[in-house]
Amino acid sequence: MNPISIITKKRDQQVLTAEELAFIAQGAATGTIPDYQLAAWLMAVYINGLTDQETADLTRAMAESGDRVDLTGLPTPWADKHSTGGVGDKTTIVLLPILAACGLTVIKMSGPGLGKTGGTIDKLASIPGFRTDLTPEQMKAQANHIGIALTGQTPSLAPADKTLYALRDVTGTVPCLPLIVSSILSKKIAGGADHVTLDVKCGSGAFMETPAEAHRLADALTKVGTAAGLKIRTAVTDMDQPLGRTAGNALEIKEAIRILQGQETGRFRDLCIHLAQITLENCGILADPAFAIDSGVALMKMRQWVTAQGGSTEIFDHEEWQSAPHIHEVLHLDEPGWIKSIDAETVGLQIVELGGGRKAKGDPIDYTVGIETLVQIGDHIPTNQPLFRIHAATQESAEATSKTLLTAYKISHEKVEPRNVIIQ
Amino acid sequence: MNPISIITKKRDQQVLTAEELAFIAQGAATGTIPDYQLAAWLMAVYINGLTDQETADLTRAMAESGDRVDLTGLPTPWADKHSTGGVGDKTTIVLLPILAACGLTVIKMSGPGLGKTGGTIDKLASIPGFRTDLTPEQMKAQANHIGIALTGQTPSLAPADKTLYALRDVTGTVPCLPLIVSSILSKKIAGGADHVTLDVKCGSGAFMETPAEAHRLADALTKVGTAAGLKIRTAVTDMDQPLGRTAGNALEIKEAIRILQGQETGRFRDLCIHLAQITLENCGILADPAFAIDSGVALMKMRQWVTAQGGSTEIFDHEEWQSAPHIHEVLHLDEPGWIKSIDAETVGLQIVELGGGRKAKGDPIDYTVGIETLVQIGDHIPTNQPLFRIHAATQESAEATSKTLLTAYKISHEKVEPRNVIIQ
Repeated sequence: MNPISIITKKRDQQVLTAEELAFIAQGAATGTIPDYQLAAWLMAVYINGLTDQETADLTRAMAESGDRVDLTGLPTPWADKHSTGGVGDKTTIVLLPILAACGLTVIKMSGPGLGKTGGTIDKLASIPGFRTDLTPEQMKAQANHIGIALTGQTPSLAPADKTLYALRDVTGTVPCLPLIVSSILSKKIAGGADHVTLDVKCGSGAFMETPAEAHRLADALTKVGTAAGLKIRTAVTDMDQPLGRTAGNALEIKEAIRILQGQETGRFRDLCIHLAQITLENCGILADPAFAIDSGVALMKMRQWVTAQGGSTEIFDHEEWQSAPHIHEVLHLDEPGWIKSIDAETVGLQIVELGGGRKAKGDPIDYTVGIETLVQIGDHIPTNQPLFRIHAATQESAEATSKTLLTAYKISHEKVEPRNVIIQ
Repeated sequence: MNPISIITKKRDQQVLTAEELAFIAQGAATGTIPDYQLAAWLMAVYINGLTDQETADLTRAMAESGDRVDLTGLPTPWADKHSTGGVGDKTTIVLLPILAACGLTVIKMSGPGLGKTGGTIDKLASIPGFRTDLTPEQMKAQANHIGIALTGQTPSLAPADKTLYALRDVTGTVPCLPLIVSSILSKKIAGGADHVTLDVKCGSGAFMETPAEAHRLADALTKVGTAAGLKIRTAVTDMDQPLGRTAGNALEIKEAIRILQGQETGRFRDLCIHLAQITLENCGILADPAFAIDSGVALMKMRQWVTAQGGSTEIFDHEEWQSAPHIHEVLHLDEPGWIKSIDAETVGLQIVELGGGRKAKGDPIDYTVGIETLVQIGDHIPTNQPLFRIHAATQESAEATSKTLLTAYKISHEKVEPRNVIIQ
């Protein structure tokens, strides 16, 4: 088999065989197909598309391009969850304890954040002592013991995806449905799961900006995932404003704890409960996620989890840990009105500017900084009331972010309806 | 300007500006745009095309990506000629002396051959002593003196084309009209010409296999060349059998000499005269190319040319130079019939197998080897009559080629018409 003939087939709108797609995935994983040939192939795929069968074959080949986590010995079913990424998205950190409280055993691998969306692994790393480098054996032992384990992604997991993902970023081939689908699902398969819940974010802070696009992605994930042997459930959820009240690593852990302590209600809690519900349904488990929170069992699971991975449980007792030295409130200075929009993308990028996210791979992170969003779409805001609370390392960075955030929301002089967090 | 936005514009079927195309050409020439981004852009261009205006802008930008030969001081018009490449295509070596004999001054740069089509520069290099590394100043002085100069292409000529051409070869983006057109014309413009004759080959031994494809290329070359300020004439010519009687470096020089000596007539001489005619017309010169041959003036010009570039004039006195040790005739063993086809591509590839062409850039060449094609389409061939005469370095290679050549022609038991060398 040779790469040029596979490129020209896709260029000429022909359907590729499973063997040809495996050749591409292996070549990407091992470096035997040079970047320029992969780039030409990616562009041909972007323009001419892949059939559902091709996408399923590519997904399987990418999953098989490296190691696959073997979950044998853990209670079934093997559930996993993935979000297409949003600003302030700490869902996993709340969801895993709820699922464990309801009797599921959950193992999850998570990649580091880049750009406007933070990484779950970075958020957890803000907990003093928390280890994110468990071996597969340690993960399985811990999950068998307490029902939860989460660790960073090993480089040997779906290495084909690593190569293709990096290339797509620099060749204008990112927003391509079959490539997005195969990238997401190949990592889930390689991670060992057989039941997968997919949270497809939709809005200004997400990859898919319109509900129509998000639904198309959810449908494609379901079709291709099912063809690849997974049990899939999807939710399309709103990302037209930051998720929850906080964005920033330690701030989000604190918010997750408040949710599990039953101290906060609203959109973010609703989302966690919805995702827990469809995951439990998908796995055939009858349990009530809201009760898991209200009874305190989910909070106890999170304590067990943090303890098992070496983290300090002092984080549950007070909020005075990993705190930024400068707190700055951004006030609404104009006439009163209703909040019409809050640009999640701007908030996400300001987290990076504050030092709480990465511009480039490997950049260090300041866990303490972040932004609290004190209002939501539909809220009425009087003049001189606070919109955002900035947690910053320096006065200067707080002021710079403050300036930008003043451009990140819009006001209406007519009443605006609040938005549902669950779109579908 | 950034490469990703230019890639995505073309991906989304938008029209690129002259500035954007210049950015691509400069990036390709200087290496500031990495290969994988150029590859993605090439595939987007392949699938979504370029308008005539975009192709003209790209052509000009590629021509300006390196040095441009300044022909100031030479008699005008500045004519050049290009062939899309064929097996046994020694046209330039006959054409230049004819044009010089008719009063034109011709400077030409020529690249080395690769694969089934040999390079003019390699053919000339088979003449003992012949220099192919003239400086621009030496070229101009020689052309002013005798009306002809030909040299190898300098690497500084249209360097964007070098990068893009090499990438197209390995990314399935070779047969793309706007890319072919810009590649051909950018080198002609950089070479300093303003009047260009283009010989578009058509058939099994050529890049364009059908007359329809060849006409499309000829039309595109005319349109884009004119838009770029060139005076263009094109000819679509037959390449469904090897051109002339010989293929192989020294063998082709000997054939060129026989044509200029008036010893041979037929399809190849007809082609040379036709190309000379349209070139002279295009340049506004009234002269008779056939008379240039018959009078011996063109032969004299070739002698002056070979002498000026250091070559031995003994090549004009006898044919016993650069001769291969093994001569082997391939006989027609079946029933008598008419020659229906001769696969030029197979003949071209066998020249490479014999050692007379390159499989990879920089491979050494055996100037002595080659293949004489003793029949043409339409000829009647009796049993046991010779079809090909192989000139080889060893008995083994002669026999291997002999075996392959037996598969390279087809016989009809009904009369077959000979083919015109000029299609349009």
